[in-house]
Order: sequence, then structure tokens, then C-alpha cells
Amino acid sequence: MGEVISLQELQLAARNHALPLEALRWDVTPIGLHYLLTHYDIPDVDVDAWRLEVGGLVERPLSLSLDDIRARPAVETAVTMECAGNGRAHVEPHVVSQPWLLEAVGTARWRGTPVAGLLAEAGIRDGAVEVLFTGLDRGVEGGEEQAYARSLRLAEVLTGDAILAYEVNGVSLPPQHGYPLRLVVPGWYGMTSVKWLSSISVLGEPFDGYQMRHSYRRRQHEDEPGEPIARMAPRSLMIPPGIPEFLSRSRIVAAGACKLRGRAWTGESEIVGVDVSTDGGATWQRAELDDDSFGRWAWRSWSFIWDAEPGDYELCCRARDAAGNVQPLEPPWNVGGYMNNAVQRVAVSVVE
Amino acid sequence: MGEVISLQELQLAARNHALPLEALRWDVTPIGLHYLLTHYDIPDVDVDAWRLEVGGLVERPLSLSLDDIRARPAVETAVTMECAGNGRAHVEPHVVSQPWLLEAVGTARWRGTPVAGLLAEAGIRDGAVEVLFTGLDRGVEGGEEQAYARSLRLAEVLTGDAILAYEVNGVSLPPQHGYPLRLVVPGWYGMTSVKWLSSISVLGEPFDGYQMRHSYRRRQHEDEPGEPIARMAPRSLMIPPGIPEFLSRSRIVAAGACKLRGRAWTGESEIVGVDVSTDGGATWQRAELDDDSFGRWAWRSWSFIWDAEPGDYELCCRARDAAGNVQPLEPPWNVGGYMNNAVQRVAVSVVE
Repeated sequence: MGEVISLQELQLAARNHALPLEALRWDVTPIGLHYLLTHYDIPDVDVDAWRLEVGGLVERPLSLSLDDIRARPAVETAVTMECAGNGRAHVEPHVVSQPWLLEAVGTARWRGTPVAGLLAEAGIRDGAVEVLFTGLDRGVEGGEEQAYARSLRLAEVLTGDAILAYEVNGVSLPPQHGYPLRLVVPGWYGMTSVKWLSSISVLGEPFDGYQMRHSYRRRQHEDEPGEPIARMAPRSLMIPPGIPEFLSRSRIVAAGACKLRGRAWTGESEIVGVDVSTDGGATWQRAELDDDSFGRWAWRSWSFIWDAEPGDYELCCRARDAAGNVQPLEPPWNVGGYMNNAVQRVAVSVVE
Repeated sequence: MGEVISLQELQLAARNHALPLEALRWDVTPIGLHYLLTHYDIPDVDVDAWRLEVGGLVERPLSLSLDDIRARPAVETAVTMECAGNGRAHVEPHVVSQPWLLEAVGTARWRGTPVAGLLAEAGIRDGAVEVLFTGLDRGVEGGEEQAYARSLRLAEVLTGDAILAYEVNGVSLPPQHGYPLRLVVPGWYGMTSVKWLSSISVLGEPFDGYQMRHSYRRRQHEDEPGEPIARMAPRSLMIPPGIPEFLSRSRIVAAGACKLRGRAWTGESEIVGVDVSTDGGATWQRAELDDDSFGRWAWRSWSFIWDAEPGDYELCCRARDAAGNVQPLEPPWNVGGYMNNAVQRVAVSVVE
């Protein structure tokens, strides 16, 4: 790893944190270990003054307190969420933004009320095409002062499993996860799940705010519109086996049978297999997919018994989905450094 | 900020996270925002099988379950904890290790039983000079395989406020903060507060394990023994005012009266003042120290009303202690890049 990042990028890496890979061992990621990306600052919200405004092309605009929202029908969904910029630091040529390596992911149990139910209550008027979700977090990005805001097509909101969440893992949302209320859109990259919600607005035209028009698009050149980023591509990660060397994070493993374990997920299709390589991706063997019961939107567990003989290895894993997609060996490139789902590589020394 | 760090250092920055500076606004840092440094991996602890062994030069060795420890006298202490490597990424020449900028700090309410009480129960034998605390986290560092372990002089343990904590902020310790039990030594840099405790051993000789002999010493050259690092030097941080620019984290502030707020702390003496500069440290004005009631071991709040006129500024703050120490403008240098308490610098544009 001879590449470098600037102290400016390090400032972002110090604020925004990834999942320590050994934390893949928990089905549900403990609070504080789930990945976290805050575009601007975590807002300071006075919940007594806070309201969620539901407006735009609706029959009956709503202005709801947190208690109002908690009084509505509740669901709890285990959701694996990944940042669209995960893997960016491995992309070449270098893309300057939050420098994720490969662990910007986590799985949480989000509890809240379905967005579709709230919109039905408000009554959607003719001509509606999108729903805009706006947060309380404000900043300047690309020279534009803005509150963080993202939209979804109306059909996606009405037929999907999107919820307005006020609890995570059984407790009230911590400030960094969107207190008092956030959107959670299962299967989509995390930028969609707007935190610190202040308003929901039903629109008659597609929203072209900065986070839709400029960010989160897959483009080969700055001057092309590109494709909007939506659902998570297939990816797998392993819990690095053995013990780490402090600085390099390379692993030392005792010779003998070594059970490799990990998780695999996708927002597009369904995971149908995971393969493991012990030679840097030259050859692959099938891992065992567990029959987890975390639901459609959470990661899938896998394991592989490796007969570890003394020597140096580069372990890799790759997920395959029902549509025939498989994780690539090398990072794909685009202007924003998004959706890099190249395989994980773990350096291991097996010792007697 | 023209300097660079390697992807190897970025791996550490992705795992270990700092306090987002706006989180200085909370007297007690919410879980998930407190700084976190994990030397090796977060261990997977089966609490039913776990015991704390208390041995060495004691009359009555103890082997205690978590329930045994919870049944003992409990205290709760608000403690500001900072990493000894905080500020390392600003040190020149560059020191390769966890690349903290300046926000590796947090304040938490730790609840547990006093270490001194447990040692009195075990009975300390003649000849005891130190107490060794060993964690369950294992790895290789400096070529030595080790469990993380640090010692304290016996007098420090018997007269100080060190506790064996099983709760933080009113909940059971999360895995990353040392579940099921950790040491918390108020006033000391964080390396002292060993997590995932497995044993406490009373020693007749000073412990010379890697984390005492090699790490956490202040040295100008690799080949000198240097001074062990102990208590936190005075430091202050401000909540960056206004709103951030995404990439640079520079701030945009509206012209007019702007209340700057922050925290100051020390483990050595007592904070007696905080000064603020709006011109990069050329001139200073006194901030107001709040009369907080968080106790001796937690940070102190301060504020300063700044009459912000349009223009570009570099805001700084510096803490002063009762012993006459004041934060330096430039980072001090030592081999490990420890104890860099140079002043924070915040770039601000004030706009009409």
C-alpha cells in the first residue's frame, strides 16, 4: 500500500468511521461500531421544538411531533447499510473525498413507521412523481450552501420498505444516527437514508439538488450526467482470522483448521454464493452460506474451513448474486469513486 | 495541509475514531462519539465463562464473575479521556502510528467498583510496588506477540480514583469500550485504562512489558529510555462555529456576535484559564470559564463572545493550568509523537 492521502482527507476519516472488521462477528452491529458518514455537522436538535413537516403535493399537510410519529404503526427491520463511497481509497486514479477503505458498512435493527403509511395518511395528489427528504444538517458543498436532501421516485417509496426510524437496536436514535428521526431505505446505499429529518415533500418534478444532480452519480467524465446511484452492489467481507500486527493489520494465524467467517449482502438481487481464495484471487473455492433468519434486507453469513499450512497467503472473498454478478478483482473507476465492490484482500502469515 | 499519510495509517484511522468536534457540545459524550483506540482486535467475550483473576503479591487471590464485581461498592465518575497520541498527525518529522489530528478525546460517566477496594479485599503483601492490568486483546507489536498490558505504581492505585468499570453513560459497556470490564484511571492518558480486563496482578518489580518499556515513553532518540507518559497535559478545543465546507471542514460564519464554546482539561493540575485568538495565535483574549459541576476529572466548559466582522480568520484556543503551563503554538516532537497539545486552528470565513 504505497499510496497516500492528504491531511484534509484524514480530517474526514477521523470524523467518519468504519466498521472494525472483527465486528462483522455480530449479527447486529453494536452502536458505535456501525459505519457513520456525516456530510456536515451532527445537528443539535431540541426535540420539544422539532416537527416533521409533510407537505408538497398532498391533500392534508402534516406537522408531527416525535410522539405523534411514535403513536403510528411501527415496524422493525434489520438492514445492512453501506456507504456508496465504500472502497474509494483503493480507486485509481485517486478520488478526493471521504477516503473509505472497504469497511463502511453495518447492520442495525431500525424501528419506526412506514413512509408509505404516512404518505397515505397525507393523501398524494395527482402529478406527484418524487418524494423529497430534507435533513437539518447544513453545510457548503461544491460551492452551494445546502441542507442535506435527497429524493426518491414515488413508486419506490410506495412499494418499498422505507421507514421513518426513531430507534436503533432497541434504543432511541443516538445523535449521530439521525436523532430524533431518520429515513431508512433498505437495499439502497446509505446516502438515501437521510438523517435528522425535518421535512418530507411530495414533488411534481424530479428534485435536482446538489446531492442528486452532482453527487452520487456514476460518471466517467465530469461533464456527463451519468447514472444515479441506487441499490448496493453485491459485496462480501471476512473477519480477518488470527491476531493482527498493530501497524500493518496483517494477520498471524496458527497452522491447522481455520474457520473463516464473514458476511455478504446486496441491494439489487439476492446473494447465491460466496467464494474464498487463499492465493490472492487466482483460484476460488465455495464457502458455505448460512441459513440466516435476519430477513431480506440484512447481510448473509458464510463460512469456510481453511486447512492453513505454514506460509504467507492473501485471502480474498467474493459474493455472487442471483443475476450473475460477481465482485471484481480490481476496483471499477468513476469520477466520484463510488460503488467500488472489489474483493477484500487480507495478508496472512500462518505459523506452526 | 500539504502533508500526507499512507494507506497503512489510513487503515488505523478507519478503525479508530475521534470525536467529531461539534460533539464537544455534550457535557457527556454520547456512545459512538467518544474517541476509540483499539490496539489489536475487539475481543469476543463470553461473559458466562469470563472471570477477573486478582493475584500476585496478595494474601487472598480472587477469581470474580461480573456479578461478583457488580455486587461490590459502586461509584460513578465523569472522566475526560484523551489518547496519548492525540495530535500525532501534526507532528514533524512525521511519526508513523495511529494518525490522530486533534480530537481523540471524550467524556463519559463510568460506573464500577474502586480498584483500591478490591485490592484491600485481596490484601497486599509486603514488597508490592506495582499493579499490572492485562486485557484479553492480543496482537503483535514491535515484533512481540502480547496481550495488551500496562502497570501502575501501587501508590497511584491506592490513592487515586481508579475504578473497574462495567457501565458507561448508564448502560453496560459496549464491546468496543472493554466489555465486560475495564480499568478507568481518571486524569491519565487513555492507554492506562486497560480494556477487556482479564487479570490484575500485584508485582514486586516494575513491569517491563512492551507497552511500558517501548510504547508510551517520551524520547528524543530511539536508543534512550525516556520518560513514561502519565497524566494528560492541558488542552482545549472549540466547537467549530457556523457551518462546514464538506471537504476542507473550513467554516462559514454569519457576521455579528458569535458565541464560541469549547472544553478544556488537564490531568496534571487544574485549568485556570482559556484564551482565544482570532488571528492565528498572534494576539489572545480571555474566554469565560464556566462553573461546571461535572467533578474533578471531567473537562471544563468555556465560552467567548466574538464580534465577527466579514473576512477570513484563523481561530485558536489555548488552556492554562494552575502550574503555569500553557498550550504551545507549535507541536512538540518526540519519537512516538505523544502529548502534542499544540493549539487547535480553525479556518473561518465570516460573511454578511
